[in-house]
Amino acid sequence: MAGQEKVRFGVIGAGRIGRIHIQNLCQRVSDAEVVVVCDVAVHETRQWAAGLGVDNVVADPQDVFNDRSVDAVVICSPTDLHAEHMMAAAKAGKDIFCEKPIAIELERTKQALKAVEDAGVLLQLGFNRRFDHNFQRIQQLVEQGALGDVHIVNITSRDPAPPPIEYVKVSGGIFMDMAIHDFDMARYMVGSEVVEVYAAANVLIDPEIGEAGDFDTAVTILKFANGATAVIDNSRQAVYGYDQRVEVFGSKGRASAENDTPTNVSVYTEDTVTSDKPLHFFLERYMGSFAKEMEDFASAVLQRSEPPVGGEDGLKSLLIAMAATKSAKENRPVLLADVAAH
Amino acid sequence: MAGQEKVRFGVIGAGRIGRIHIQNLCQRVSDAEVVVVCDVAVHETRQWAAGLGVDNVVADPQDVFNDRSVDAVVICSPTDLHAEHMMAAAKAGKDIFCEKPIAIELERTKQALKAVEDAGVLLQLGFNRRFDHNFQRIQQLVEQGALGDVHIVNITSRDPAPPPIEYVKVSGGIFMDMAIHDFDMARYMVGSEVVEVYAAANVLIDPEIGEAGDFDTAVTILKFANGATAVIDNSRQAVYGYDQRVEVFGSKGRASAENDTPTNVSVYTEDTVTSDKPLHFFLERYMGSFAKEMEDFASAVLQRSEPPVGGEDGLKSLLIAMAATKSAKENRPVLLADVAAH
Amino acid sequence: MAGQEKVRFGVIGAGRIGRIHIQNLCQRVSDAEVVVVCDVAVHETRQWAAGLGVDNVVADPQDVFNDRSVDAVVICSPTDLHAEHMMAAAKAGKDIFCEKPIAIELERTKQALKAVEDAGVLLQLGFNRRFDHNFQRIQQLVEQGALGDVHIVNITSRDPAPPPIEYVKVSGGIFMDMAIHDFDMARYMVGSEVVEVYAAANVLIDPEIGEAGDFDTAVTILKFANGATAVIDNSRQAVYGYDQRVEVFGSKGRASAENDTPTNVSVYTEDTVTSDKPLHFFLERYMGSFAKEMEDFASAVLQRSEPPVGGEDGLKSLLIAMAATKSAKENRPVLLADVAAH
Amino acid sequence: MAGQEKVRFGVIGAGRIGRIHIQNLCQRVSDAEVVVVCDVAVHETRQWAAGLGVDNVVADPQDVFNDRSVDAVVICSPTDLHAEHMMAAAKAGKDIFCEKPIAIELERTKQALKAVEDAGVLLQLGFNRRFDHNFQRIQQLVEQGALGDVHIVNITSRDPAPPPIEYVKVSGGIFMDMAIHDFDMARYMVGSEVVEVYAAANVLIDPEIGEAGDFDTAVTILKFANGATAVIDNSRQAVYGYDQRVEVFGSKGRASAENDTPTNVSVYTEDTVTSDKPLHFFLERYMGSFAKEMEDFASAVLQRSEPPVGGEDGLKSLLIAMAATKSAKENRPVLLADVAAH
Repeated sequence: MAGQEKVRFGVIGAGRIGRIHIQNLCQRVSDAEVVVVCDVAVHETRQWAAGLGVDNVVADPQDVFNDRSVDAVVICSPTDLHAEHMMAAAKAGKDIFCEKPIAIELERTKQALKAVEDAGVLLQLGFNRRFDHNFQRIQQLVEQGALGDVHIVNITSRDPAPPPIEYVKVSGGIFMDMAIHDFDMARYMVGSEVVEVYAAANVLIDPEIGEAGDFDTAVTILKFANGATAVIDNSRQAVYGYDQRVEVFGSKGRASAENDTPTNVSVYTEDTVTSDKPLHFFLERYMGSFAKEMEDFASAVLQRSEPPVGGEDGLKSLLIAMAATKSAKENRPVLLADVAAH
Repeated sequence: MAGQEKVRFGVIGAGRIGRIHIQNLCQRVSDAEVVVVCDVAVHETRQWAAGLGVDNVVADPQDVFNDRSVDAVVICSPTDLHAEHMMAAAKAGKDIFCEKPIAIELERTKQALKAVEDAGVLLQLGFNRRFDHNFQRIQQLVEQGALGDVHIVNITSRDPAPPPIEYVKVSGGIFMDMAIHDFDMARYMVGSEVVEVYAAANVLIDPEIGEAGDFDTAVTILKFANGATAVIDNSRQAVYGYDQRVEVFGSKGRASAENDTPTNVSVYTEDTVTSDKPLHFFLERYMGSFAKEMEDFASAVLQRSEPPVGGEDGLKSLLIAMAATKSAKENRPVLLADVAAH
Repeated sequence: MAGQEKVRFGVIGAGRIGRIHIQNLCQRVSDAEVVVVCDVAVHETRQWAAGLGVDNVVADPQDVFNDRSVDAVVICSPTDLHAEHMMAAAKAGKDIFCEKPIAIELERTKQALKAVEDAGVLLQLGFNRRFDHNFQRIQQLVEQGALGDVHIVNITSRDPAPPPIEYVKVSGGIFMDMAIHDFDMARYMVGSEVVEVYAAANVLIDPEIGEAGDFDTAVTILKFANGATAVIDNSRQAVYGYDQRVEVFGSKGRASAENDTPTNVSVYTEDTVTSDKPLHFFLERYMGSFAKEMEDFASAVLQRSEPPVGGEDGLKSLLIAMAATKSAKENRPVLLADVAAH
Repeated sequence: MAGQEKVRFGVIGAGRIGRIHIQNLCQRVSDAEVVVVCDVAVHETRQWAAGLGVDNVVADPQDVFNDRSVDAVVICSPTDLHAEHMMAAAKAGKDIFCEKPIAIELERTKQALKAVEDAGVLLQLGFNRRFDHNFQRIQQLVEQGALGDVHIVNITSRDPAPPPIEYVKVSGGIFMDMAIHDFDMARYMVGSEVVEVYAAANVLIDPEIGEAGDFDTAVTILKFANGATAVIDNSRQAVYGYDQRVEVFGSKGRASAENDTPTNVSVYTEDTVTSDKPLHFFLERYMGSFAKEMEDFASAVLQRSEPPVGGEDGLKSLLIAMAATKSAKENRPVLLADVAAH
């Protein structure tokens, strides 16, 4: 892309997250322009996209892959199409940003990654939390050695309310659709690989979730090759809102990230002192990270450098989620190597 | 503007604050479009504006006032041109958003406000801090009566570093160019009018500021008609950064806004516990408020409703700044009525 | 007191504050023992004191002054007897710890201080807040130069509820009985002398207070010889409890002390996030400081060194309180020199 | 003890913790008096105790058990003598406060508890953290139902520095001498019994600790009968000081306790914002809890009511510690029932 100023993007899927990426690419990523958007709801998408100056809206993803003006694609289609779209995009020689997970099956994930590797295109996965201002600060401290060797990582990750039961049934479960973000966060923080997983999980919020074969509350321990241990606690329902905190404890100290809040106002009355609940959900909490990950991806594409979150990161998190699911069901520590071997 | 979907804006002045307004109008205010920008640096502005899809850039403000497609103008010219541009815009029947202050002279301010009144156009002034998320929350609490009658307002407002001495010489001084924001904030919070002002001011940071006839450190007391007292402390130089806090204390409690920070991370080491300094300066701290004030202005224009900060607010803040200057120089409480009478 | 291990104390007055001092002297000040207590309620005091191992309780203060086994006296009698008791104690050659104020009349104060000076005994005044852990930390930072030159001091000092109206009528008023602590605090922080005072005061809480000739809400500005300005805001009634905060802002930074609270627990619910109100009132908030001031006094007596808060500090605070009262009533800045001259 | 005003205490062992109890009993527990202290270092102890008005110091514990004026004993002897002293005290009909653990062997613990039961005396164990102001507040919220059903408990418990290696060799290990407090805390918070334990432990701080057969870093998961899960992270060395935090997350919200600090002062400088590290170690952090547990014990003795922490609590924590040790060594979840059965 020598001499080219901007990366020309095609976006597959203009649902909630797709629209966020399109908006960010149009307004906040100076290295990017959106040349085509693909969504089955063509008419509605066209109306919406026009407001951002994007006129080319198509219904068939193949029209994006075939478009020679497109440098890179952003895949925001339903999860079960991610792998297929990745492979098609790779074949067409497009660099790829793909929402996580690549797939919830190991084989399919490997297949998609192989296609990317064979094609020699760049791949970045949508582990957006790595680009969160708070967590990035902590990771930098780890990387600089300011916290010494990492001994313990504590991650709290709780949603304000459970997803629809239909989603739970097909999502792959709490470890695959929710905790997977935290597994990636733990790897990001520790900078080493997970060797073994133990998960204790329960159904405490909604029996229907249990009937669907899933859990709604889970605590997971990850043992890393370098001796560090990560503890992740997940809940499908924190009534006070989206609870997203990370703490890294090491030989030289600790760094802790509190939740972000709408305001910094405290109110003192005769009864009590009140302050803000956390930002409501991921759209509010991680808004900045969505823009930042796109900036970094566009920059990697322009400079032909390795994107900050790659296929290997997707594969590793999938394996951890599989091991955690197995561990919770069989109530025993599970080696990642054993899961990977199958 | 019956049936019209968007307000068509002309912007006068594409300097630092002008560009922020243009960008917000283009990207964050759905009710707005920018049809023309005026700046003496036409070539440079044209290049920059093209990136936002704005092609019409002119050098002469009159071209904006004469443009029949323009509904409203945003005046970001140098302060000493505000009044002139306001009067021209009013004459042309354009609604007006004007950066503060209208002028640093009372007569000129009144003259400009008269022109606006005669023309019957809408006017909003750029007291952007009223649109800050933290301060707006506190004001809402006051308005809802959650804090009872307001007894004391404490405002801390300190800049990270003094402006260039050339600016100090023409700005009208610390009360006129800096504390004026805080005077407006006090009025916004108390919801009553200032009767009397006492200011204690010093030159503690840079003797050159004193030689220019100004102060660099000031504490001002405002007495309101309803019995409330506001205390404002200003400094031209807080070495730890931009310090912007407001507290309202009333018969039913208090609400306090802390500074915003880049992250919510705390770091514990053998030596100490550290956390973030406040957001660096007004561009970072008040970024959200600049977008919000434009949204509200565009909305007022569309609905022909009274803008949230009007000419009277500009006049009152100017009078308080004049009284504070007089008080600091003569070391005595000064009645607002006495300043207004001249 | 060569070779003596402990200071032998006589305490005049076993009311609320007297009992705190006696308890601290018995249990927390290793350098002290209480050999006699004086209170008009001899019987009741005897019962209470026995629990602390103090058997000698008398009704007549003169019995304390005449007691040759007494090294030092702690004067906790009603305010209008402080000066008389100080003079008697000085005449008897006892070192003196006296609750503030010495008197609410300037002449009487000077007379008592003269007696102390003539007798060559040590005197410490009960400005206990100087011994508070939070404020002491800030003062140390100032002294070490960590904050640079002091530019602005902000003191918030609000009581949970007004005192009985009978007390208001004889106390000398809000500046004399309440703000005087804050005037001393400002002097402690700034390390320079007050030159001029301006106070804005109101009756906003209880009209009866106004009818008694006093104010219930006040904001005071103190101008110091070294250019620093202190701002103090006082209220007789903060419905959320005792609000005691100090901030020092200087050329190298600022230090701020938040209120102490019963616990550090935050509670997140569906509705809001709540945390503790400040410690209820001065007995809770300043408990540690009462012990610390006695320790330091006992140590000064043993070592014949200058106590940390002396007669001059009492005189200066009285003058500031007088100037503030005059300023509030006449609505003009008042020079301390002018008050002192009368 | 009908009609008796105070509980007469005998204290066995006047080492660090023994002296704290003696001092609290003498000065802060109004229902108590210390009539005899036993310590092998008779002379030194006598000197120290005299300062508190305690004159009776003996070398032989039997002299305490035989003393008919003694109502209750406080056992602060070395851990390996706890059981023996408990049995002797029980036989003598004394109520017992015993430092934890009763013993580090299950049989011996049961034997001692049997003796207590047979004698019908009251027993309270020194799980002082239950009396900490912060944790007590959280437990009250749980008990009141303010947090709903408990789903997850997070406990962080880290020491500032490892104990001497000699201590490590005989203490029973990190789970027995350190985490045992946290196991009791988890039971206190959840209000249900632990069914299963999984612990992941490492040697990351000092290889000597590993050579002594112990761990220095551990993460433990406790599964409770009511479905709650507790996660405890322990480290022998947090370089920033004693880190003691508890969070309870339930169906109606969460409550979190931050560390206590020496002051509430924040310092803002050009470089950063700093605040206090946690209170240094358990003597500072839990000082209030030591007095509170004695008050409650004395009160239970006077009223012949069940003490707040009893023998069963000691037994349960021991079992959890044994299970955790086994789990960490065998890397598998361990049922409490299996440990208890042996």
